[in-house]
Amino acid sequence: MQTEMHGGDIYTRPYRIDFSANINPLGTPPAVLEAACRGVSRAADYPDIHCRKLRQAISRREEVPAEQIICGNGAAELIFALVQAVKPRRALLAAPGFAEYEQALKTLGESCRIDFYQCSREQGFKLGEDYLDCIREDMDLIFLCNPNNPTGLLIDPKLLESIAEKCRDKGAVLVLDECFNGLLEDGEKYSLKKRLRQMPNLFLLKAFTKLYAMAGLRLGYGLCSDEKLLEKMHQVLQPWNVSIPAQEAGTAAMEEREFEQKSREYVARELSFLKEEFGRLGLAFYDSKANYLFFEGPEDLYDRCGEEGILIRDCSNYRGLGPGYFRVAVKRHEENKELIRVLKKCLG
Amino acid sequence: MQTEMHGGDIYTRPYRIDFSANINPLGTPPAVLEAACRGVSRAADYPDIHCRKLRQAISRREEVPAEQIICGNGAAELIFALVQAVKPRRALLAAPGFAEYEQALKTLGESCRIDFYQCSREQGFKLGEDYLDCIREDMDLIFLCNPNNPTGLLIDPKLLESIAEKCRDKGAVLVLDECFNGLLEDGEKYSLKKRLRQMPNLFLLKAFTKLYAMAGLRLGYGLCSDEKLLEKMHQVLQPWNVSIPAQEAGTAAMEEREFEQKSREYVARELSFLKEEFGRLGLAFYDSKANYLFFEGPEDLYDRCGEEGILIRDCSNYRGLGPGYFRVAVKRHEENKELIRVLKKCLG
Repeated sequence: MQTEMHGGDIYTRPYRIDFSANINPLGTPPAVLEAACRGVSRAADYPDIHCRKLRQAISRREEVPAEQIICGNGAAELIFALVQAVKPRRALLAAPGFAEYEQALKTLGESCRIDFYQCSREQGFKLGEDYLDCIREDMDLIFLCNPNNPTGLLIDPKLLESIAEKCRDKGAVLVLDECFNGLLEDGEKYSLKKRLRQMPNLFLLKAFTKLYAMAGLRLGYGLCSDEKLLEKMHQVLQPWNVSIPAQEAGTAAMEEREFEQKSREYVARELSFLKEEFGRLGLAFYDSKANYLFFEGPEDLYDRCGEEGILIRDCSNYRGLGPGYFRVAVKRHEENKELIRVLKKCLG
Repeated sequence: MQTEMHGGDIYTRPYRIDFSANINPLGTPPAVLEAACRGVSRAADYPDIHCRKLRQAISRREEVPAEQIICGNGAAELIFALVQAVKPRRALLAAPGFAEYEQALKTLGESCRIDFYQCSREQGFKLGEDYLDCIREDMDLIFLCNPNNPTGLLIDPKLLESIAEKCRDKGAVLVLDECFNGLLEDGEKYSLKKRLRQMPNLFLLKAFTKLYAMAGLRLGYGLCSDEKLLEKMHQVLQPWNVSIPAQEAGTAAMEEREFEQKSREYVARELSFLKEEFGRLGLAFYDSKANYLFFEGPEDLYDRCGEEGILIRDCSNYRGLGPGYFRVAVKRHEENKELIRVLKKCLG
């Protein structure tokens, strides 16, 4: 059976529980759903092309000037816009990593050379100090995801600082994808947000998708103190890229402080539970800090789980991986227990 | 006072009635709004990247194979994707025309030469036979809007056939924007849909925005029998470009046959009313067949109407126009009467 290119594809085959998409297990906050529905009732209007209310709400919450915020139809749209705006001649990706960085760079054809830093199994798929040597003189654009997808591993904060500094010195734009940062217990420690002001070459990518469980509404944003870069991105984007329901939902989400804390605690607890159970099952897993767990298993585990109605993410199509690597989302406790039961059955 | 780049910008200043956006005056059908809200309730899921259900619904309605349908986050997104997919070395636009064609072509920088066919005031802004001479050997991409925006004028069907044939002979992709066709009384007569199968170089652009009044939800689609071109477009688009509410709303909209007929009749009646009243006011207007009216007036008419709470579209920033050109949408009868009252006051 052919596996899908992405997680979250619940439309291709029947399933009971989807562990392939890394969404907050507590679901979408009710106030966010209500705001989106209010947005729907204004369907006949065009959206605000400047996302003024939404950007103000993000600005208050992130403590970043509204002028340094750009909103997109999901973070994925901003990845493509960044590539079109920067038009790099040479770019650096880490493997394994989110497939859309490479997909976006490939739209440039032969005018962009793509280098890959391979995170090796021997080093536990961690980003090593040797990554710094890959940031070459003629590099224009670098993508990093922290925590990384699919591994859930964090970049050592000191190494990350050095990477950002080297990018600045070499004149490369560093796109740091922090889409999963919001569900970390100590996310601030690992974020480079505090360096935005000093580092105009730093672009932080954020999504509403994961923390607020709004993948279906499409909303992401970027933070960057280089307003000229943001202007270039606007030039390659249609003016009405963010729908009214998404703008309304995002504005409401920025008020959800209690929900966020509860979510982080829930995810941390269930991540521990899964790690413990995976250990008991004898599955080799990696030390994810995110709301998903990356592990090794029998090559046909995707199909075996599928037969039990459990969708997991087969990671064999990630560059730098191969058969036998998988990812599961951290979900509700009852669901996680069911995952363990099914895995036990499939492995046993 | 600076006018906005686009119509429908109701966020910049206070207003009572917005005549600047060309949306179906009957508003969004209730079943479409309900479907969108049901979509919101599934916010935590990712959208179907293949828009399967939506494309099936469009396929049944348009009688075009689902494989020849591409959906976008509004038709505007597809304009940008087309430009990225075709990467024309030379392109042809008509002026005045929808600004996004040019905006999208400009993302290619100097690698794309843009020719303009100027529709002249002397010829009543109509596309003339001499347009055919502008379709040169080395042209890769041509945009035409029918009925045109902002003029509302239709292209003579015979001339349009000749244009499509010449494009095919020269190997140019003809993007025919029929976004306003659905609100015409005899839309089929002016559409090139019947030629899609024989002409793989023809791309028909359609929006849900106008007919179903869903500008805020963002949904457009394209029809083209060159499936390789559609595949290239997918490569430059993020996979999850169409939100769940938009997919659900669009699927529901395809069932709205009665609403459509009612809308067309309403618009035709009110368009006649506006033309008659504009004639009485002594305003020079053009023979629009669309759900908007293009006319000439005093240069400061936008500001004068604005002071009365009436937003009209100042067309002075359209290429090929200048101060003194305006566009108003056809709205509800009471609203149209109010427009006439305010125009009378402003002119009198």
